[in-house]
Amino acid sequence: MSVFTTDDHRHMARAIELAGRGLCTTDPNPRVGCVLVRDGRVVGEGWHEIAGGPHAEVVALRSAGEAARGATAYVTLEPCSHHGKTGPCSDALIEAGVSRVVSAMQDPNPRVAGEGLERLHGQGVDVAVGLMQPQAEALNPGFVMRMRNGRPFVRGKLAMSLDGRTAMASGESLWITGEAARRDVQRLRARSSAVVSGIGTVLSDDPSLNVRLEGQERQPLRVVLDPRLSMPETAKMLTLPGKTLVVTAASPDDAWERLEARGAEVVALPDGPDRIDLPAMLRLLAEREINEVLLETGAILSGAMLRAGFIDELVVYMAPRLMGDSARGLFRLPGLDAMADTLDLEIDDIRAVGRDWRITARPVVKATV
Amino acid sequence: MSVFTTDDHRHMARAIELAGRGLCTTDPNPRVGCVLVRDGRVVGEGWHEIAGGPHAEVVALRSAGEAARGATAYVTLEPCSHHGKTGPCSDALIEAGVSRVVSAMQDPNPRVAGEGLERLHGQGVDVAVGLMQPQAEALNPGFVMRMRNGRPFVRGKLAMSLDGRTAMASGESLWITGEAARRDVQRLRARSSAVVSGIGTVLSDDPSLNVRLEGQERQPLRVVLDPRLSMPETAKMLTLPGKTLVVTAASPDDAWERLEARGAEVVALPDGPDRIDLPAMLRLLAEREINEVLLETGAILSGAMLRAGFIDELVVYMAPRLMGDSARGLFRLPGLDAMADTLDLEIDDIRAVGRDWRITARPVVKATV
Repeated sequence: MSVFTTDDHRHMARAIELAGRGLCTTDPNPRVGCVLVRDGRVVGEGWHEIAGGPHAEVVALRSAGEAARGATAYVTLEPCSHHGKTGPCSDALIEAGVSRVVSAMQDPNPRVAGEGLERLHGQGVDVAVGLMQPQAEALNPGFVMRMRNGRPFVRGKLAMSLDGRTAMASGESLWITGEAARRDVQRLRARSSAVVSGIGTVLSDDPSLNVRLEGQERQPLRVVLDPRLSMPETAKMLTLPGKTLVVTAASPDDAWERLEARGAEVVALPDGPDRIDLPAMLRLLAEREINEVLLETGAILSGAMLRAGFIDELVVYMAPRLMGDSARGLFRLPGLDAMADTLDLEIDDIRAVGRDWRITARPVVKATV
Repeated sequence: MSVFTTDDHRHMARAIELAGRGLCTTDPNPRVGCVLVRDGRVVGEGWHEIAGGPHAEVVALRSAGEAARGATAYVTLEPCSHHGKTGPCSDALIEAGVSRVVSAMQDPNPRVAGEGLERLHGQGVDVAVGLMQPQAEALNPGFVMRMRNGRPFVRGKLAMSLDGRTAMASGESLWITGEAARRDVQRLRARSSAVVSGIGTVLSDDPSLNVRLEGQERQPLRVVLDPRLSMPETAKMLTLPGKTLVVTAASPDDAWERLEARGAEVVALPDGPDRIDLPAMLRLLAEREINEVLLETGAILSGAMLRAGFIDELVVYMAPRLMGDSARGLFRLPGLDAMADTLDLEIDDIRAVGRDWRITARPVVKATV
């Protein structure tokens, strides 16, 4: 157990702040920040900006130059020990003469966890781990979930009236919330690796599911769960930059071929007739290095994902409006008939977003794939 | 138009604070506070505590004694000019030699508004009105509504899950919210003149609708809207201190007599068969000097009151819980089918109450009787 000073906390807090600058760009890599400090003075800073680009430690070492010798490196994630697109960061730190490395957390991949730190320790570098670990993990909920549990982190986004309704009985729903809330959703999409929706939402709203923010080029993978493959080849999202993956329970046929001809990828993951195997869907996304999923869909798929324990965070935009009890609800939860079976949440945050309110909550029960 | 100084504001703010001490006791009278200031020094304070007891001005004058001569009186409501249970406060102020009266607002009763101030002015007292009027009106939303519009102020209280559900499909609902929220509801009841519920709620929950707070003796009138007079004579509320009024659309019969024999008052206010005339019900309550109504009921009556524009404030306790879309909703609003017809709210406040969250909102559309 290491003892950390106030200065250690201050420098790690700065490294975490730097890491956050990569929120929407590092995908599928984790967001990582690094601060180099010698004799109480910051001599280098860096963060990972984009996959294929230099890691945070390398950026910080470059900015420090010779001043890195004898310095302490604060890193939000254990320095890598493998040869990927760049050389191992642990080697770079050793070569630069860094004398101490403070890491907020080990690599969450259980197969490599600790190797980078051991390599440093073996070369005489003083190593400490665990400083501000919760905050460091919160930088990368998807990367951590994928490494530890083999599935992405799933954030369910919903827009509702104060009385918990998402659409009129007819399906009419545009727009429950205001402009500020919709911009906020754009930021959620921009940080996500994939946006997942159900075929019902596609058929009724023909959503774009893309990011429309200035300066944001990376588009999250669009995933449509479509058991019977009824996705229209005229769907708007098929005309937009970025990839679309259609997950079905159906077998290859003309519709399948027409969707592929329009650029979509179609994958069958059946769990009985007309049912998609949700755990298999999540495993597939994890294999494709999808870290954070934004689930933007209706009550049926939202309810199925919630009931299965696959929603890790809920972001609910509540509009100052009443729609009445014939309007549509948030979650279809068949068989939930008794108060004792209702699902507990931890509410983390409630704040105003324009005229609407954003509620961030975590379901208490979660499941692995 | 009077110009008020910083000191004027400070003293009126204190008078409003004092008035608030009568929140749960002055009924059916308004909450009123008074501060007497001479040469910049507070020489007397008072508030109205209980109907039949002395008015705020009289309490303040007594505490000031001879020091009231030449003083300024800050009062949250126009001093009365009529002989009620106590003599007119305007006369008492004149006799005590008060030289200036600053009133936050006129008497909201249009038939008497201004008389007390005119009487003071006629006797050479310097009179100013309108300082912090919104805050003073907020002390007495019910009294003001009753005087201006001939109906009580109606506060709708609801407890829901985050997904907007008040009970399971079976009706099971105890307890959605936690202990802190239930204590908060007790405070809402304690300030109310009447608690109104529907027969459906009585039949399914057999509620007490009473105040169970230490030191609180006054019980709000319990009102049950019961079109077919199906209120059981074994209802728990009939055994409790305080009065129960049953409003029906039925005609006198055995059930009626049995309820009266149990101490309830039964009044028929039909609006066609099996329908209660809601405006007539509100007028009846106003005639009985009911200022603030707390509406604690299910989706049908809540929806009817909301749709009619008779809910002035909503207090919604939101529990960190999901119940699913087969559970019961907040408001039945038949015929509301289009987004354009949904009801706008102004949200005034959202705050944590224990593990739950309390949302205070005002429907934008309101109606008179």
